[in-house]
Amino acid sequence: MRYKITLEYDGARYHGWQKQPREPLTVQETVENALERITAVSVKVTASGRTDEGVHALGQTAHFDCDKALTVERMKAALNHWLPEDIRVKACEIVSDTFDARKSAKRKTYVYRFYTAETESPLRRTRECYGGASLDVAAMDSAARSFVGTHDFAAFMSSGSSAKTSVRTVYAASVVKDGDSVVFSVTGNGFLYNMVRIMAGALLKAGRGDGAERIKNALESGDRRLVPDIAPSCALYLEKVEYESD
Amino acid sequence: MRYKITLEYDGARYHGWQKQPREPLTVQETVENALERITAVSVKVTASGRTDEGVHALGQTAHFDCDKALTVERMKAALNHWLPEDIRVKACEIVSDTFDARKSAKRKTYVYRFYTAETESPLRRTRECYGGASLDVAAMDSAARSFVGTHDFAAFMSSGSSAKTSVRTVYAASVVKDGDSVVFSVTGNGFLYNMVRIMAGALLKAGRGDGAERIKNALESGDRRLVPDIAPSCALYLEKVEYESD
Repeated sequence: MRYKITLEYDGARYHGWQKQPREPLTVQETVENALERITAVSVKVTASGRTDEGVHALGQTAHFDCDKALTVERMKAALNHWLPEDIRVKACEIVSDTFDARKSAKRKTYVYRFYTAETESPLRRTRECYGGASLDVAAMDSAARSFVGTHDFAAFMSSGSSAKTSVRTVYAASVVKDGDSVVFSVTGNGFLYNMVRIMAGALLKAGRGDGAERIKNALESGDRRLVPDIAPSCALYLEKVEYESD
Repeated sequence: MRYKITLEYDGARYHGWQKQPREPLTVQETVENALERITAVSVKVTASGRTDEGVHALGQTAHFDCDKALTVERMKAALNHWLPEDIRVKACEIVSDTFDARKSAKRKTYVYRFYTAETESPLRRTRECYGGASLDVAAMDSAARSFVGTHDFAAFMSSGSSAKTSVRTVYAASVVKDGDSVVFSVTGNGFLYNMVRIMAGALLKAGRGDGAERIKNALESGDRRLVPDIAPSCALYLEKVEYESD
């Protein structure tokens, strides 16, 4: 029986999603350990993709196989019983054996949150990135729209990526005001290593008046030096992963 | 020279405001240490009142005297330089020697935040209290309004308080929806030990259909057993302190 789960997690404590030999605390390992408590065997959990150290998820998806035929309600409750409180299964369903959380994923949406205030906020610092007293949201939105389309995002990728190609398609990208928060949303068919955080770093500059030209030039030239900033991980959220059937 | 400062802090790491012999990490001590870095002498900082362990502040106020005649801009910048990132001075002003952050305070406003969701949220758990899938906000608001007025709040006080009287005046109290958050605000001339958290615990019950009668009876009888719950500290915020001149 194949299960699909949708997870929310606070990434602060974790060295990202993916299990790593020398970093004991990852989300994958924590979920696999919870599952092992339920099934008494070791089960591999495959996510839609890895999230990096410190990155949060509102709707990460994953699948695993389990012979113990638990109802989805019982599986969800059992996982939430064994998981620590910074990881929660929000939804659980039984899917066909051909479903693969990573390979079947069609679109992913990430959200990056800035906030504006006269002084940095102790209460927002763990969830949003400080954007100074004000940001030019219209300039940021306009700059974000230049990401839309199929581009070579080579300039928006940290070294150390194993991706075969840096061409990706962005379906939607926008920056909107939400109270005194400023929210960048981007939906694409896939994202390169640190891609959204580099985009967010460039947008922050655009919001401070450093012309959006830089972003267009970086897209054309593939030159990482034009967009050198990587915005902090604590303000990045994997919002949702969409599949064909959605 | 007497300075008044307005502070925001994330209470999670702190054993409350007030300096304690056996608990090294308090907000007061942390602010006094920062001040000592600036003035090179030890300075006592007096807040509007103590906040308890884990409680946050959006606008705690405090005063201190300092012979070094720094401008308010420089004092604010210097304090924020030495303070850890979970405490920030939002405003600084020079006040008359008769101003006392505690004795001159006329009204304090606290906010208690609940959230509703099908599943507990890892990303909200450190800032809001889980209220289940839904809450009856109208019932909570109606129950909150019964706090308004001058009452003996003996039922809404934890033991261990040194207050001479448990009579307090509440000027305003309401519960409103804010997205899928539910926010209780209460303004009064002063609050007893754990008073807002006991009110919040009782309101949570009212939001789940456990008649608001209980709150009215507790106000009349002073019987703490009618309102036994103390809601978690991580969802409580000292929002602002008002003075005569405000």
